[in-house]
Parts: sequence; C-alpha cells; structure tokens
Amino acid sequence: MRALRLLNWKSEPELTEVDEPSPGPGEVVVKVGAAGACHSDLHLMHDFTAGAVPWNPPFTLGHENAGWVHTLGAGVTGLEVGQPVAVYGPWGCGTCPRCRLGIDPYCENPAGAPVPGGGGGLGLDGGMAEYELVPDARHLVPLPDGLDPVHAAPLTDAGLTPYHAIRRSWPKLPPGSFAVVIGVGGLGHLGVQLLKATTAARVIAVDTRPDTLRLAQEYGADEVMVSSDGTADEIRRITGGRGADVVLDFVGADPTVRLGAAVARTVGDLTIVGLGGGTLPVSFFGVPYELSIQTTYWGSRPELIEVLDLGARGLVKPKITTFDLADAPRAYQQLSEGTLEGRAVIVP
Amino acid sequence: MRALRLLNWKSEPELTEVDEPSPGPGEVVVKVGAAGACHSDLHLMHDFTAGAVPWNPPFTLGHENAGWVHTLGAGVTGLEVGQPVAVYGPWGCGTCPRCRLGIDPYCENPAGAPVPGGGGGLGLDGGMAEYELVPDARHLVPLPDGLDPVHAAPLTDAGLTPYHAIRRSWPKLPPGSFAVVIGVGGLGHLGVQLLKATTAARVIAVDTRPDTLRLAQEYGADEVMVSSDGTADEIRRITGGRGADVVLDFVGADPTVRLGAAVARTVGDLTIVGLGGGTLPVSFFGVPYELSIQTTYWGSRPELIEVLDLGARGLVKPKITTFDLADAPRAYQQLSEGTLEGRAVIVP
Amino acid sequence: MRALRLLNWKSEPELTEVDEPSPGPGEVVVKVGAAGACHSDLHLMHDFTAGAVPWNPPFTLGHENAGWVHTLGAGVTGLEVGQPVAVYGPWGCGTCPRCRLGIDPYCENPAGAPVPGGGGGLGLDGGMAEYELVPDARHLVPLPDGLDPVHAAPLTDAGLTPYHAIRRSWPKLPPGSFAVVIGVGGLGHLGVQLLKATTAARVIAVDTRPDTLRLAQEYGADEVMVSSDGTADEIRRITGGRGADVVLDFVGADPTVRLGAAVARTVGDLTIVGLGGGTLPVSFFGVPYELSIQTTYWGSRPELIEVLDLGARGLVKPKITTFDLADAPRAYQQLSEGTLEGRAVIVP
Amino acid sequence: MRALRLLNWKSEPELTEVDEPSPGPGEVVVKVGAAGACHSDLHLMHDFTAGAVPWNPPFTLGHENAGWVHTLGAGVTGLEVGQPVAVYGPWGCGTCPRCRLGIDPYCENPAGAPVPGGGGGLGLDGGMAEYELVPDARHLVPLPDGLDPVHAAPLTDAGLTPYHAIRRSWPKLPPGSFAVVIGVGGLGHLGVQLLKATTAARVIAVDTRPDTLRLAQEYGADEVMVSSDGTADEIRRITGGRGADVVLDFVGADPTVRLGAAVARTVGDLTIVGLGGGTLPVSFFGVPYELSIQTTYWGSRPELIEVLDLGARGLVKPKITTFDLADAPRAYQQLSEGTLEGRAVIVP
Repeated sequence: MRALRLLNWKSEPELTEVDEPSPGPGEVVVKVGAAGACHSDLHLMHDFTAGAVPWNPPFTLGHENAGWVHTLGAGVTGLEVGQPVAVYGPWGCGTCPRCRLGIDPYCENPAGAPVPGGGGGLGLDGGMAEYELVPDARHLVPLPDGLDPVHAAPLTDAGLTPYHAIRRSWPKLPPGSFAVVIGVGGLGHLGVQLLKATTAARVIAVDTRPDTLRLAQEYGADEVMVSSDGTADEIRRITGGRGADVVLDFVGADPTVRLGAAVARTVGDLTIVGLGGGTLPVSFFGVPYELSIQTTYWGSRPELIEVLDLGARGLVKPKITTFDLADAPRAYQQLSEGTLEGRAVIVP
Repeated sequence: MRALRLLNWKSEPELTEVDEPSPGPGEVVVKVGAAGACHSDLHLMHDFTAGAVPWNPPFTLGHENAGWVHTLGAGVTGLEVGQPVAVYGPWGCGTCPRCRLGIDPYCENPAGAPVPGGGGGLGLDGGMAEYELVPDARHLVPLPDGLDPVHAAPLTDAGLTPYHAIRRSWPKLPPGSFAVVIGVGGLGHLGVQLLKATTAARVIAVDTRPDTLRLAQEYGADEVMVSSDGTADEIRRITGGRGADVVLDFVGADPTVRLGAAVARTVGDLTIVGLGGGTLPVSFFGVPYELSIQTTYWGSRPELIEVLDLGARGLVKPKITTFDLADAPRAYQQLSEGTLEGRAVIVP
Repeated sequence: MRALRLLNWKSEPELTEVDEPSPGPGEVVVKVGAAGACHSDLHLMHDFTAGAVPWNPPFTLGHENAGWVHTLGAGVTGLEVGQPVAVYGPWGCGTCPRCRLGIDPYCENPAGAPVPGGGGGLGLDGGMAEYELVPDARHLVPLPDGLDPVHAAPLTDAGLTPYHAIRRSWPKLPPGSFAVVIGVGGLGHLGVQLLKATTAARVIAVDTRPDTLRLAQEYGADEVMVSSDGTADEIRRITGGRGADVVLDFVGADPTVRLGAAVARTVGDLTIVGLGGGTLPVSFFGVPYELSIQTTYWGSRPELIEVLDLGARGLVKPKITTFDLADAPRAYQQLSEGTLEGRAVIVP
Repeated sequence: MRALRLLNWKSEPELTEVDEPSPGPGEVVVKVGAAGACHSDLHLMHDFTAGAVPWNPPFTLGHENAGWVHTLGAGVTGLEVGQPVAVYGPWGCGTCPRCRLGIDPYCENPAGAPVPGGGGGLGLDGGMAEYELVPDARHLVPLPDGLDPVHAAPLTDAGLTPYHAIRRSWPKLPPGSFAVVIGVGGLGHLGVQLLKATTAARVIAVDTRPDTLRLAQEYGADEVMVSSDGTADEIRRITGGRGADVVLDFVGADPTVRLGAAVARTVGDLTIVGLGGGTLPVSFFGVPYELSIQTTYWGSRPELIEVLDLGARGLVKPKITTFDLADAPRAYQQLSEGTLEGRAVIVP
C-alpha cells in the first residue's frame, strides 16, 4: 500500500510503497478514511533531531485519524469489521492509573508504551496510508451516527486538545465569566465553538488576522480583537476590570503567554496549548493571586467520545480542506505558508 | 484442579475436580493466593433462582481474589509470570464510557461483558480454586510491596465497596463534619478505617453488637452506640442538632435506611450499601432538603489501586480468618451463623 | 402604602393600607418594581394551618421581588439609592457555614434567622407592596445592565430554583448526556432554557399539555413528549437504552417521581423540585445503581448573580404576564385555574 | 489603651497609647486575647514604602487575632458579649461574588473594602492592642469548645493559609499520592500536620535545618530531607520516578520554586505560598504537562471554621511562644534572626 513516510529527521516526507499491516492478538487494522495534517508534523520534519524524542524515523505520518475497522486481531471483542471509528492518538502503557482512566498522554510508565510518549504518526506508523495498525482495540472509538471519518479525524486532535483544556476549566466558566481564546487557527477555531457549545461564558477571541476574527464571530465569539498594544487594557475594560476567568493560549509564544497573564483574573486559569516556544516568568506578585498556569497536551478517550458527539450534532464543525494522499506534500506546504484556512485532511 | 463450585441454584457448593484453565489472547491465568467469602455468596446459594440474574450455575465461587500471575495469553503486556496481583472483580464490556473509566460495575453495555453484570465467582469461574482465568489483563492490579494476597483479597470487595462510597462523599467530609457508619461487619469495619485514614471527619459507628463496637473504637470511631430507639436523637445531639453529613448504611434493612434518613443533614449523603432489603420512602418534606440518597455497588479499578496502597501501608487492616479450600463450607457456615468476626478468606 | 396581605391561614389575601417601612442599622428599604406570584403562595392561602411552619399571618405576600434601593439603614455600604436590585428571597441566620457560603435555604441555625425557614413574603412582609423592608443588605443583588425589575423578579425564584438544581448536576451533563425535564410550567420553562444555555446535554421535555411542549421546543428542547404509559419506554429508546443522566421533576407527584426513577441512568441524578406530594420508594434493587435522588429548595446568592447574567444577556427569558397590585387576586385566580401561561408578575 | 503601632514605613513599631475603639452600626469591638507575629510584618516594617500598597501608616500591627466579643454595634446579631472568637483577617468589600463566598482575599472590588487589599494590622488597626475594632460582624468566627484565643490566633493565618492551599489540592491527594512541603517554619509546620490530618497522602518535608526536620517527623512527615543538590533526584526516586502530586513551597525563593517544578508530576499542583521573591520560568517543555502552578494568599471564612475545628480537636497544634505586648519588639527581633521556633503570639 502507499504511505506518506518520514524517512529521516530534517527531511520532507515521501510517498512510498509498504506492506499492508496485519493485526496480532488484541490489535486492529483500520482502513483509513481521513488523516489530519497537523502543525506539529512540520516540527517533526524540520526541527527534530536524533535524541529529541525517544523514537526515530522511519514511520508513516498522521496522528489524527479516522476510518473503518478492517481486520480484528485475536481476542478483540466489541468491534465489527466495517464499523466507522476514530483512532485515539496518544498510546500509553495501558496499565498505569492514568491510562486506566483513559488519559494516555499523561501515561506514567512510558517505557511500557508501544513507543514512549508517541503513537501512530509519532514514532509508529500513522494514518497517512491506506491502512493503519492500531496496537490495542481500546484506542478505537466508534463514530456516532452523522459523523463521517473526514469530519471526525480533525476532532481527534484539533478538537480533543482544546476540548480537554476547556473541560478542565468548566468550574471556572459559569454564567458571568469570560474566556479568552488567543489564536483562532486549527485548534483555536474549534476552541471558540467548544466554549460556546458547552458553557455560557462570554468568549473573547484574539488574533493577528482580521479574516480569522470574522470567522471567530461566526462561531459565536462575543468579542473579537486584532492583537495590539492595547489588547490587555481592552480586555480588562470588557471584563469590568477583573480580567478573564480562563485564558487559552493556542499560540504559546512570548507575547501571547504574557498577554495571557496580563488579562487573567485571580483564581482563574491560564492554559498554554500552543508550542510557540514562549516562557512566562511566574512570581508571587507578578501574576494574579491563585491564577493556575499550566500547559496541556491532548485529551482523554472519554473526552474524545464527547467531542465526537458534539461533531455529530453539528455543535462543533471543523473547517476542512481535503487533499488526496499524493497531494499531502502540498497540504503541508500551504500549512507552512499559512495560506490554509482551517484544517487540512488527507483522504487516502 | 480442585474448585468449590455452585452446581445449581438453591444448593450448597461442592468441592469438585475441574480442568486447569489456559488463557486465550488477552487473557491471564492467576494462581489463586486467597479468595474472600462474602455474605452475597450466601444469597447466591440460598436465595437466587433461574431468571434472577442473566447467568446460571455451574460456576466456581469467589469474587474477591488475589494471587500471582501464572500464564499470560497472547498479546498481554505489562505483566510478568509470578507477579503478585489483585483481581478486579466486576467485569464489564470494556468499551463503553464507564468501562473506559475503569468503573465496570456501572457498565452501560452489559450484553458486551463476559457475562452481563457478573464476573469471576458471579456466573463465571471465580477464585475458590487453584487457578482462575481472568478474561482481560486490565482486571489485574499489581500488589504494592508489603501486601500479600491473603490481606489483599478482602480489599478487592469488602474494602473497595466502602472506599468507593466514601471517596464519592469526600467533598462533604471536611473538618467539622460527621460520618455515620451503620453496621460494623465485613464492609463496615473497613469503612470506619477508611473514613479515618482519608478524612478528618468525626465517625459515629452504630451496631447492635457491643463487641463489634469495641472493635470500631479500636479502628478510631469517635463515637459508638448500640442501636436503640434513642439512636437518632443521640446522633442529632452529638452533631449539634444538624445531623450527619454522610451516612453509610452497610445493613440496608428497613430500620437502618430510616435511621439514616432521620440522622442525615440537609445537603448530605445517605448511601445504601447493604443488601438488607429495606425501602426508604422519599418525599419532599419527608427527608432533609437536598440530602442525596443513593445505593452504590462495588468500585473502580483506579480506586482499587488506592485501597491497596492503604492496605500496604497498614492504614487499613482487614480482620481476617483463613480457611483452606476444603474447609470453605465451614467458613460459609460460620458466616451464615454470624459467628465469624471480620472476613473469611479461603487459601487454596 | 398599599400591600397585598395574608391576614389569616385559609383565607384570600387582602389589599390593605400599611405604614411604609423604615430601615434600622444594616437594613435596606426597596421600592418594589415587580413581585412574582408563585404557585407556593396558593399553598400558603389554602393549605397551611397554624403549626405547619414556625411563623404565622399577617404578612405581605411576594417572595420573588426586584426593584430599586429606596433608603439605606445605618452602616450599609456598597449600595446606592435608586440602584436597581433583585431581592434574594431566603433569609437565613447569616453566620452559620451555609449562610456564609450564601446558601441561606440550607441555613443550619434557623432560630437565628429573621423568621425560621422563611423570608419576605414567607412569614415576613414581602414584595406585594410599594416598599419592602430587607433586613440585611447582603440579600440585595444589583441588576446587571439590560435587565429590568419586571424580568428580574421571576428569576429570583422561578429561575434560581431550577438553576441551582441544574448547576449541581453539571458534572453529569457533558456532551452526549440527556436531561429530562418533567413539567414545563413556571419553573420548568426556565429549566429547559437554563439547560440549553449552560450545557451541551440533549433535553427531553415531558408535560401533559401539547401547547406547553410547543413552547418547550421553542426554548430548545431536543425532544418533547406528552406523558403517557409509553413515556418511560420512549425515553429509554431515545437514550440508547441507558436512561437519562439527569431528571428534573418540576411536578413532584407520585406518577412523576416514579417516571423519574424509571428513566434515570445509573450514577445519574433525580432531583425533585415540585411540591406535588409524591413519594418514591427507594430500595437497593428498585432504583438504578448509584442514582442520586434528592429534593432541592431554592438556590444561593452567588447563583442568583449568575442567573441574572443569563437574563440580562437574553439567554434565559421568563414568559411573563403583568398585573397591577389591585389585580393580584386575579393573577392568583388564573394561576389556580391553570389558565396562566408562564409567570404572573405584580407591578405595584 | 496600649497598642503596638507602625507609625511610618521603614521604622520599628512603637508601643503607644490610643483611644479605645467603639463600634458603629454592624461593627464589633473585640477584646484581644492573642495576636500572632507574622514574618510578613517584618516586610511591612523594613521593606514597604509609600505606594507599594494602597494604604499607609500609622496603624496598629497584628493581623492574626483572637479574643472575646467586647461590644456590639447597632444591628449586630448572632454574637454575644464575652463570646470567644477568632478574627478573620482579610477584609473585602463584602458584596462581590468572591466576598459573598467568604473568600475576601480575592475580593474583586477592593475599592469597596475598608482598605483595599488589607485588613486589621494591614492598613487598619490590628490586634496588637487591648481591643480591636472589627468593621463587620461577619469577620468573627466563634471559637469551638477546647480552643483558647492563644492557640486560635495563629490558626487564622499561619493555619488558614496552608489549609486553603492544601484543601484546593485535595482531589490530587488520594491514597498513593505524594505531597512535598518545602520549608517547615511558621506555616509549613502546620502544613505538614494539615496534610496528615486531612488526607492519606505521603508527606515529604524539605528544609535546610535538621532540627526543624525532626519536628516535621513528629508531626507525621513520612520522609524528611535536608535540601541539597540531590534533593530532586531523591524525591523522584521516592515517588517511583513519577514526581510528587502536590508541592507546597512555603519559602518561594528561586531555588525552591525551581525545586518544586523539578519534583512535581504531570497534572500535579505546584503552589507558591512563601514570599521569598523567586521567579519560575514556565514554558511548554520546561515544566511537566498540565502541572498547575499558582500562588495562593490566605483563605476563606468557611475554611477558617474548618481549621479551628482541627485545632480544637488537637489534630493540628501550632507550636507557640508567647510574649506580652511590651515584649512584642523582642518577638520580632527573634523572628528576624530566625531563632524563634514555631509562631510568636503576643498576649496583650
């Protein structure tokens, strides 16, 4: 079968021919219906070197996948051939307390995982191929009626990551509260929708691109603003001087993490989702009292079920451009140039 | 191998010879180190008839088990032969959201479970034998250092059930609060210890047996009382007129559920754990405002890990009498007569 | 000034002339802008007798009030004359831990309250008059911009009560969950809106009146059904056999509490809000495992702030018919006959 | 009456004669039984200058007070003259949502407070005098039986501050978890006790002083270690490589906040309590995934009630050295020199 593979660090991926996988006991092969192209893939191609992570090329790209059950390994129950499924992307050891709660990205025994801290498309073969081998049936979540693999795939990462970040902040988002979304791109445009769908918080969207902000308004953002020197003051004003209860930074660069701390409220949440390389200096009198500051990485399997429900009901709609497998390099090209709106999805 | 099996409803179990099990893909055979004898087994023997549950004899008894990994089926990772393990008893479908969170007793797809609403010793072969077949490696929890199978076994049910009930009530048990334990038997004697080990609540223990209450005092109960007509008034007095924040009824008979409602506080918890057949009439002005009333059944896999930690550190100590497999009928006899103190554990 | 007063138990209220109140230290007099007429007032007029509650007539009716600050007693800070305010209705002792958290209906020291278990319109003079004396400034909540007293008044009870019930169930209402609203009247029509505004749960509304259900659909109910013998089966079917995560019974009669238990899910919530006099027999195998069953009564002061925010933003809109003070008896007449749609609000 | 007053920034406090206070409406005068001397007072004397905070000297020191109700202002209910009380120290506006929940240190309307961000001993006259004027009766919490003002006073700040920090982390402190306490001084020695009294977490205490660590062991710390270059590795080893679930840094200097981040676990809590002036650089790959990092400041009124309960039952015992009012300067001298063990309490 054909597969888009990263053969070496610091290289472009290549479309090559590989053997079709076949499942061992407990494993499942999925016929790929869609595989999202993620900004983090660009880091894999261009920035990573040996030793950065505990795994190395070659492997097939694509860590945001959905499709249909193709073959079941021995002992697998609860799934049927042909059934549409989303692939839960982070694959932990399966036996530590975190994995037992379905939150594999925080696996406490990475040495026991298929690859430490990775998954399909991240050290192991991913979804940019006709078939993907999934090493444990628990990673598959049946698609609800009304959701096809093309729309489900981006929800497994670009949807699940902001959903996890927002869900953990729900207790701080009652009516009367404000949430700030910094960066309305692949994850942020879903973040705005997820906030509106699951809370009664007012949503303030910040971006550098006026077009993107128009999109944020369509998704229900109560206030949008092109970031500038006055952004922090403007948000303070809108929030009655108190600041925002929850700030989600989907950029993660120096200016955005500082903006986040400047506009957040005491006892609020500032969650850094983007990999923009920023650093926030945290000191007692430098940030609001009891503002919780944290990064976050991906989400849990039960949360994926919830995101898929929102997708199936049309409460969250990823903006998608599809490419076929041969065209995947062009998708990454556009992603790299910033000329792609929403999420690129490869349809093998 | 020898096994204590229930061959028919309304009969005594028999010690018979059966084949040693061998594991299929994903399965594990455990060499049994200890199997607890539970009051609910007496119901199985004496009260159940065809149709009461969706499964039937014959099967080997014992749903409270611990031992050592004996043989691993194909595809099982993360376990080693010889490793001491506790067996998580309730076996759900493994794929519904509840099972994905490790809380199999509330499985939403019982038709997908090995037997609906059951497990080893409950429709399938359990631990009162030399070996037990466990149908999914996820049901095994490694024993922490310092805890042997004999002391671990009772913690998987008699410990886990009250622990789950108490843990869900933690937010209502801050310093200054009161918890009432009704019935200080197999589960209740661990309930008192679990409350003292994990909260700063004052614990009031109620039982009909003065000897048992002396034991409750040793376990740290702040107040103990032989139940009488004046018990409700006495608890109201001790709690400053407000009532108890949390009541755990390990008996579940008519008088105890009524006592529970009579001594509970507004916005408290009344949790019915015992299978005593009682019925509480709930009406708007008949129970305190926003008192949450619920039954509870067993606990979750992550909770079992936590209970085993308490056991390994000596913070919770089940009171145990051991019997060998041939003597199991005698254990049930004593259990039935009420002459057994603490938990009976069969050591095959 | 004129006031609609209940002069005796088992009597109709009378419009009489009384002295205008003047505030002592810490007290505030509110010029009443609107006072809601509540179904519970009918119980006060027709069903109560001496000894049923720890207070007696005469008093002015109206426990659902909003208006403007009129005069401030000595020592009151943080309020200005003329400022529009909602009156928080349940008045506790102010010093017990519950009152310190702003949840006066669960006051633990009712003997220390102005009247035990009551408030304005419930033992003390309420809002069906030109002015109302509020015994503690903490009971006043400033109205947010965009909300006038007429629309605010019903939110202080008919809005706050379902809001409190729903908010405590939020953790059980993630995407994919189902909420059932039984009874879409004065409280229930706001309950449907509050569920839709604050969660992504699907809402199923049940009532006996087809017209009311059309209204429920306008408010966003995903499914509506005229209650019949088949209702429980129909809800089971819609929920994929699992039952509803949360049931809010705004009727509280025998058939509705039983319906609630029949359609609720394991580990769900069944909350009885209505005073319909029903009784639910609760036993271990008679209700789903760990279904929490509770009554609820009114809400907290911080919750009132949140409800008013929803009202000011148009996310929750009480359906209102206004009457002037002289016409109040007619409002109660219609309320009693069931010919009133939504909430009756008296505008003095 | 005599009072120890700070007359100017950058000066030592002086014992002077001032008028006895008398209460206005809603106010209460407390006869001071004990006033704790806090490390932050040294900052007030030596480090603060005009403009640092929105208030200035002169004022009487002492923000950690307990005593007896002396005179009641007009309109005060629920208190009796002679009743022993603790004074809740942070005084907010009383009407914002935060104050309505009793968490005045996070008041959102500081302009409406008696002094913005202060209280008795912090801009207003505090407890180092024979009498203290408390501007709102809600700031007084009755002492439970068995707790005298001398032992209660330190609990209002040195007890309440770590209690608040620990209580918010309870969900991350189940059995099997680890808590690290950095700095076992005035607050930390109570932090160790509070962790042991309210959770089943293992406690690791870190300090530079071997004597202090012996004390920590008496208070129940499971592991103690003199801080060194190897401390982080040692904690990683003890926690099975995973790190600590919760780190409480009572020092807050550069080395301690960095140690905190180095030993904390993914999805853990790192709470900075100490005012040591340290700064932690937070970046995506620089701290564990979803580690929540926050400062914290004091606690809530309901939490104070809970801490006093622990104190009255002997579950938490502040280590105390008493001084009379004339000797207060000597107490601060010893505090400054680090020769004081536990908490200095002034008894006027």
